[in-house]
Amino acid sequence: MSNLHENSIIIDGLNISKFERSVFEDMRKGGVTAVNCTVSVWESFQKTVDNIAEMKQQIREYGEILTLVRTTDDIYRAKKENKTGIIFGFQNAHAFEDNLGYIEAFKDLGVNVVQLCYNTQNLVGTGCYERDGGLSGYGREVIQEMNRVGIMVDLSHVGGKTSSEAIAASKKPVCYSHCCPSGLKEHPRNKSDVQLKEIADAGGFVGVTMFAPFLKRGADATVEDYIEAIEYVVNLIGEDQVGIGTDFTQGYSTEFFDWITHDKGRYRQLTNFGKVVNPEGIRTIGEFPNLTAAMERAGWSETRIKKIMGENWVRVFGEVWKV
Amino acid sequence: MSNLHENSIIIDGLNISKFERSVFEDMRKGGVTAVNCTVSVWESFQKTVDNIAEMKQQIREYGEILTLVRTTDDIYRAKKENKTGIIFGFQNAHAFEDNLGYIEAFKDLGVNVVQLCYNTQNLVGTGCYERDGGLSGYGREVIQEMNRVGIMVDLSHVGGKTSSEAIAASKKPVCYSHCCPSGLKEHPRNKSDVQLKEIADAGGFVGVTMFAPFLKRGADATVEDYIEAIEYVVNLIGEDQVGIGTDFTQGYSTEFFDWITHDKGRYRQLTNFGKVVNPEGIRTIGEFPNLTAAMERAGWSETRIKKIMGENWVRVFGEVWKV
Repeated sequence: MSNLHENSIIIDGLNISKFERSVFEDMRKGGVTAVNCTVSVWESFQKTVDNIAEMKQQIREYGEILTLVRTTDDIYRAKKENKTGIIFGFQNAHAFEDNLGYIEAFKDLGVNVVQLCYNTQNLVGTGCYERDGGLSGYGREVIQEMNRVGIMVDLSHVGGKTSSEAIAASKKPVCYSHCCPSGLKEHPRNKSDVQLKEIADAGGFVGVTMFAPFLKRGADATVEDYIEAIEYVVNLIGEDQVGIGTDFTQGYSTEFFDWITHDKGRYRQLTNFGKVVNPEGIRTIGEFPNLTAAMERAGWSETRIKKIMGENWVRVFGEVWKV
Repeated sequence: MSNLHENSIIIDGLNISKFERSVFEDMRKGGVTAVNCTVSVWESFQKTVDNIAEMKQQIREYGEILTLVRTTDDIYRAKKENKTGIIFGFQNAHAFEDNLGYIEAFKDLGVNVVQLCYNTQNLVGTGCYERDGGLSGYGREVIQEMNRVGIMVDLSHVGGKTSSEAIAASKKPVCYSHCCPSGLKEHPRNKSDVQLKEIADAGGFVGVTMFAPFLKRGADATVEDYIEAIEYVVNLIGEDQVGIGTDFTQGYSTEFFDWITHDKGRYRQLTNFGKVVNPEGIRTIGEFPNLTAAMERAGWSETRIKKIMGENWVRVFGEVWKV
């Protein structure tokens, strides 16, 4: 691990691994300060509460390496104590069900980031894999309440129309926590230059992902291709509103990908990624230092590297979470 | 009660009254053979199951005047036994939640008519009181499953785009169980000539409502205004695909109207009906014979009256419910 990586705040803006001891140990090996861990995708309110309870049980059990992140102070504390901070995030507002009161309830339980839609239509809006009619009236109320209680709005898997309207509706910065630029590869999940500028102009944030199907060279990609994607976004919107959102799915097999690529986890198939292999050099969470090293090889300044590896995320989390 | 009314099958295609002994007695007084009784609007799966259990308890308790309608044979039997047949219907597919398996479950419980959306967006499509992005992918699967198990698709409170797409997607006749023509009064809940022809051309059905805010003369309307609305629709699409759908809300007070006019029963207000008063002459369910009498006064043939008062509904129910 280089000194720069070791001395930096390292934030992973999106991780949907099979959360168990080995994965958490790999976060420590990778020197990751805090991670937005997905605790709800297709689950109902109650099943999501179960997921959160299970995660908290693990955070207690592995308390020597993990800590729960409710505030940005918890991130700084994690850094100081050599732990990984766990940020609870949803990839779908489905768990809010039809109850605005569940939003504050989830904040109370520790949830800090919620993606409005996952791939398809819900009560709030529509995802990126079907025709998108835009943000619903209820969706506007959901965003208002998320703003009030301090939960960050994530739009990565959300459709274009719903995203534009959510960006306009939110009074706090919103994010694409994990996306790639369409400028390098066309894909329903990737974001155009116009979309990336739109969110940045509104004070929002872009986490760049390394999920191979979204990268230009797909399964042949290396960590250098990931750097290329990040650099593309930085060249477009500057270096202050960009961060990392790996989309690690470590520990999962085919069954998991079947679940996430079918509507509601079990109905029609929305996309098929084929074999998912992370870019060479950053195949596992433990290889996270290679990302910093690749940025150094690319000639980036220490300031830029520190911003993109974590400082930017911490700043924007602070803006959204403070109430 | 005229002989004609007494000798006819009388079907009310939509009734959302406060279901209790006095209302059921009034159905008998009105000579009503069978009624589509709303048992779900904003309720979840489980709360809807509770509602159905309560209705079944009442049907057992008042077994001398009520019977459950699962098939059209049950309607003929109700007529013969001088009972009112209770058809279970939803005004919202919300209770299906995200589970296609719940559709057959509800059919097993006796549910025979389900409106896809109530006023706003749900997982299936969008209602008539907000911008409508059309039928979702999941919505198409819902219709396919409703066709398979034999539950009628109702589109009364559904948005224009979702309705058009649902009409095209359904392999069985669908209905507007309770609506008025925009040709007589513009209202977000009323249907244009184009919409009425569209559903009829697809083999679908139109139940005409007497809900005063949708009638030309509003709270000043009489049963003659209701006849005018029915006649308007008959002149447009013929006398074989038209029936009655009163939208009686008998026994309810302000609180109920607050519940149905706010999104999800409690959020933003979607419409305000003011004071709801049914047309003079048919203010209560017990006055149902006045409707037949008004048709006779209007010079309608006995054949037409019998079709519109019930025979048409029974035929289309038969087409949809048989599997």
